[in-house]
Amino acid sequence: MELEEQMRFVAEAGRLKAVLRQTPLTEPARRENSAEHSWHLAVMALVLGDHAPPGTDVSRVIAMLLVHDLVEIDAGDLFWYADAAQHARQEAAEQAAADRIFALLPDGLAGRVRALWGEFEERRTPEAKFARALDRLQPMLANVQAGGGTWAEHNITAEQVLPAVALIKDGSESLGSYAAGLLERAVGAGLLARAGAPAGPGQAAG
Amino acid sequence: MELEEQMRFVAEAGRLKAVLRQTPLTEPARRENSAEHSWHLAVMALVLGDHAPPGTDVSRVIAMLLVHDLVEIDAGDLFWYADAAQHARQEAAEQAAADRIFALLPDGLAGRVRALWGEFEERRTPEAKFARALDRLQPMLANVQAGGGTWAEHNITAEQVLPAVALIKDGSESLGSYAAGLLERAVGAGLLARAGAPAGPGQAAG
Repeated sequence: MELEEQMRFVAEAGRLKAVLRQTPLTEPARRENSAEHSWHLAVMALVLGDHAPPGTDVSRVIAMLLVHDLVEIDAGDLFWYADAAQHARQEAAEQAAADRIFALLPDGLAGRVRALWGEFEERRTPEAKFARALDRLQPMLANVQAGGGTWAEHNITAEQVLPAVALIKDGSESLGSYAAGLLERAVGAGLLARAGAPAGPGQAAG
Repeated sequence: MELEEQMRFVAEAGRLKAVLRQTPLTEPARRENSAEHSWHLAVMALVLGDHAPPGTDVSRVIAMLLVHDLVEIDAGDLFWYADAAQHARQEAAEQAAADRIFALLPDGLAGRVRALWGEFEERRTPEAKFARALDRLQPMLANVQAGGGTWAEHNITAEQVLPAVALIKDGSESLGSYAAGLLERAVGAGLLARAGAPAGPGQAAG
């Protein structure tokens, strides 16, 4: 029965609540999980949709964000600043996870939901680029809120954050500018250093 | 600047990750929070949308589910089986929370997002009824998965779950039938008792 398959998928999806991400939460002090992250991104799409390029289908952005991390149930969350070899291994693990998890759904639906995930991964459509922009912006906001967060913890420099800012700009000009400004202010506040430069006052990564 | 207001709302929304609900999670053993719950419901709408009455706008259901519990940041989560006086106090607290939280957004957007929340609360449109059906179904699924969950913990009887089943049926005939079957199976498995009847084998609430 198709409905039983859908319910099995729903139960499986709930396991994303056990996948911890790097992003810190301030109250209570713990790391966020991927279910929370996915919800937060979908809310961001809902209230920041006017920053997507004209004609972007925000409903599809939201659908994409709801399922974009489900593969982490099997593959886990890889830190954005991991090396190329780690990223390659992660991609293989995520493909295998997609094969297993989306196949829990009835056939037609499985194809549609997997296509949403694939669209996000390929980052070619305006919807996927905007979704990715939010996915990169949210940890930046969380790090600033947490007074350093993963930047401080892993001695990340401003230069290492620039590719994320470029991805944000690729999805939304205005959010890209916002992110660039946020980065400048974070450097100014000593929340992350420039490569080779001494840490600023209040800098936690030093 | 409007974008700053939107970002303040995004930061505020993140606080929902600290609001614990009754629903248990099995791995790790802890209670789910309202951010996780909201994400899970939105995923359910995405994959169970074919069980909504014809013509239901599933995108609006998803948008509604993403924001339906934001008022709990101030008002907290009230257990479904609380008494009428507690429910009345909760409603007042949620109205005050809505006044504060949605006003963080730029004016036009604040009105649109608050309207989504109000639509969910009034439960008159097919979208709101379907959203509510999922909101009642998800804890039932979690309790069955957890082998009793809040039913066992609070000595809930099958009769007390019937209003939830009626709400599910009100939003979706087929999900209502599914929930009624789930309840029967839960009674059969001894996960909850009938009022006045002795507990079945394996029953945890005894």
